[in-house]
Amino acid sequence: MHTITYKPIGIVHSPFKDSKNVPIQTAAAKGTPGTVEVFSEYAEGLTDIEGFSHLILLYDFHLVTDFSLMVKPFLDDKLHGVFATRSPARPNKIGLSIVRLTGLKLNCLTIEDVAILDGTPLIDIKPFVPAFDCKETSEIGWFSDKIHKLQSTKDDGRFCKK
Amino acid sequence: MHTITYKPIGIVHSPFKDSKNVPIQTAAAKGTPGTVEVFSEYAEGLTDIEGFSHLILLYDFHLVTDFSLMVKPFLDDKLHGVFATRSPARPNKIGLSIVRLTGLKLNCLTIEDVAILDGTPLIDIKPFVPAFDCKETSEIGWFSDKIHKLQSTKDDGRFCKK
Repeated sequence: MHTITYKPIGIVHSPFKDSKNVPIQTAAAKGTPGTVEVFSEYAEGLTDIEGFSHLILLYDFHLVTDFSLMVKPFLDDKLHGVFATRSPARPNKIGLSIVRLTGLKLNCLTIEDVAILDGTPLIDIKPFVPAFDCKETSEIGWFSDKIHKLQSTKDDGRFCKK
Repeated sequence: MHTITYKPIGIVHSPFKDSKNVPIQTAAAKGTPGTVEVFSEYAEGLTDIEGFSHLILLYDFHLVTDFSLMVKPFLDDKLHGVFATRSPARPNKIGLSIVRLTGLKLNCLTIEDVAILDGTPLIDIKPFVPAFDCKETSEIGWFSDKIHKLQSTKDDGRFCKK
């Protein structure tokens, strides 16, 4: 199949200048502020976005250089298939975060609950709609024994180039 | 900024051979079966995925050829900024669906709640974890007056090439 080419629509600015110590999910980054700078040529696409309290951001883990099919994720010391983890070192290194929207000024969104490295290229913004995006689920695989470690676990830089 | 290049990791197979009449979200496709064929070179990455009841699929809207910054989404007859909609005709035409996982056989996942066109190139699979992916939110912008139309609204093919 053909390769797929995307062009960044903006940049995420955050307090995290280094991959080390980034919270590993937005749920462990409550209140952490950041900014989404949408390039001016796409700014019109933000029309009506202020009505949403949460946005889905899709972005490129730009400092990740390689992937493995079996990875040891931050929350566990056992290997799992990469598609059963949220590890950034994936065949296609796309990240997904649901952040809180706090404001819009021209082409910049102010956001909270940010667990994204400063300077990350943004690929897409979608409105978060619970009727579409929340599912009732009882089975979360290997996370069920490990998720209690979420708040105390940080990125240790293992997947990024120095 | 540089362009970003991804390589499909598989293909989604579904009952929808044409963009017309595809349900517009998984929530309107309860029980609709499909298959995710992961290319064999990535199959090891599926290890441990059976433990999860729901998966996040990211895929390319491969039949969409163009985008607008202001779009009329399926659920409304007014224009909205594309980033305030889930329209497939986006600057980077990535789709996101949360589907139910019902089985794994070799490199094929059987899934339900499928609202994806047959033959769609798959970019990533992530485990769905409510603690990461569900947010309490009261504000869903223009959707709040329109979401009651979800079950009765289908893709009409407007964003895809014929």
